[in-house]
Amino acid sequence: MKKESALIVGSLAFDDLEMPSGVFNDVLGGAATYASITASLLTPVRLVGVVGNDFPAAVLEDLKKRGVDTAGVEHADGKSFRWRGKYADDLMSRTTLDTQLGVFADFRPKIPAQFKRTPFVLLGNIHPALQLEVLAQMDRPKLVVADTMNFWITGEPKLLGEVLKKVDLLVINDEETRDLTGIHNIVKAAADIRKRGPSRLIIKRGEHGALYFDDTGMFFAPGYPLEEVVDPTGAGDSFAGGLLGYIARVGDVDHQTVRRAMYFGAAMGSFCVEGIGPKRLLEVTPKELAERMKLFTALVDTGGPVALND
Amino acid sequence: MKKESALIVGSLAFDDLEMPSGVFNDVLGGAATYASITASLLTPVRLVGVVGNDFPAAVLEDLKKRGVDTAGVEHADGKSFRWRGKYADDLMSRTTLDTQLGVFADFRPKIPAQFKRTPFVLLGNIHPALQLEVLAQMDRPKLVVADTMNFWITGEPKLLGEVLKKVDLLVINDEETRDLTGIHNIVKAAADIRKRGPSRLIIKRGEHGALYFDDTGMFFAPGYPLEEVVDPTGAGDSFAGGLLGYIARVGDVDHQTVRRAMYFGAAMGSFCVEGIGPKRLLEVTPKELAERMKLFTALVDTGGPVALND
Repeated sequence: MKKESALIVGSLAFDDLEMPSGVFNDVLGGAATYASITASLLTPVRLVGVVGNDFPAAVLEDLKKRGVDTAGVEHADGKSFRWRGKYADDLMSRTTLDTQLGVFADFRPKIPAQFKRTPFVLLGNIHPALQLEVLAQMDRPKLVVADTMNFWITGEPKLLGEVLKKVDLLVINDEETRDLTGIHNIVKAAADIRKRGPSRLIIKRGEHGALYFDDTGMFFAPGYPLEEVVDPTGAGDSFAGGLLGYIARVGDVDHQTVRRAMYFGAAMGSFCVEGIGPKRLLEVTPKELAERMKLFTALVDTGGPVALND
Repeated sequence: MKKESALIVGSLAFDDLEMPSGVFNDVLGGAATYASITASLLTPVRLVGVVGNDFPAAVLEDLKKRGVDTAGVEHADGKSFRWRGKYADDLMSRTTLDTQLGVFADFRPKIPAQFKRTPFVLLGNIHPALQLEVLAQMDRPKLVVADTMNFWITGEPKLLGEVLKKVDLLVINDEETRDLTGIHNIVKAAADIRKRGPSRLIIKRGEHGALYFDDTGMFFAPGYPLEEVVDPTGAGDSFAGGLLGYIARVGDVDHQTVRRAMYFGAAMGSFCVEGIGPKRLLEVTPKELAERMKLFTALVDTGGPVALND
């Protein structure tokens, strides 16, 4: 294990969550927050983002204690990014009630000099122009992972196309996959996306797990079936952070490293949904992570090869 | 491999399928048909059901050539069971347009004397009273697997409750699981069902795979992501047939046998959806099955343990 560093660029935010179980205001949120918390359970993290005057210094202090270098977190005059959403009773869908970009509206990521050689990079779900600006500042990373969303797929297809040409591994969900390609079949859509640039692609399917596509073929990792799901917010970002955190920890980009990394991503996602916001994630101990990985191993254990022997 | 026999009880039918690709009338159908075809790729099968005057002798002859003993198929005066359904454009949902029970309306399964000691039994999705009649005629089977559907869950809850007390392994889909228990969470619903009788439970989730629950824990087997899905009719029955066929072939009911059997069920389901009705299934060769199992193995191969080593 090399424990190389992972650079994570994206939003730090507050979420107001209207859950079936009640309303939770001022919950720590943001894609980069979730991804940093989960990646830092596995490897040193370098965080790039922006916060407003209202962002508690204590949160950044806590991230630092977890091995997150916050030198790339800009402090801007104004309010932090805030998202308000309401979840359906079964938590399977959600509606955005309000988005206040705040200081995030004028965010131009500046990569500190000492971050420019970070080998593993996660471009969170930000404007593709900003994703390109980040890449322009980096010095030959080993692996660039990117997320995006329907808003950019629809609104900035050309710039997003430029991003796709420059990333190694795109991580999106199945709905985004279909929106990006106009192809319903996931396997065909994956082939279409890989032709546009990223040689590797992960398609997240929520509780149904995630598919990975590269030149060696197709891989599937399940989600862990949980008895209690409290709040799905940040699960996808937790997956991405766990994924990149594990890859950086191992320090290579072999396809089997990525395959195993998906289980760590899934484990982080499974912890994430067990609490409101990042509450549960912030409590996860190395022992708990090891136990969750054992549960995952048991979940898919066939006790031997699956083949006819006669 | 012991290649013990599997008894399959259920419908033989004709389906009229309104697919996005066109209308296909008089397609061979029925749960027991699909399950017999797939199970017989793995082990000798004994089939119990009823057909009308309109059912081609050639179909039963073909099943016999595949190792299906059709001594339990009753020939009744009237028309065979017929189902007409229309699929949505994405094939993810379907509507029943017409159901003609025909000779199936008066079906009372009679187990031939030479079938009564069959060690492995699949009670297809028929009236729970008939499922109980079948069991009353059997002589201590090693494993009884049962399917059911929303129609019986809603209409015959008491009799279905009796069935649940007498089966070892219930195989239903996630919607049926929720209807049967009134519980949304799949893990909790599974625990609820297992308290009612079946010590083992498989919950099918279509393309998203299947979950298995028993005293040893929880297991997941994925569906194979296909580039072309032509017709999902019979996929669940093909899964059940492949599952029981593999278990009977191995000849034990160890939980790891069941876990591996789920991959064979999933493989049969993946072949099934590749053609209209059972067309593709009827073409599957042992070599193709072995190749499909290799694809499944590659799909979940992590190349080593998924754990942190330091």
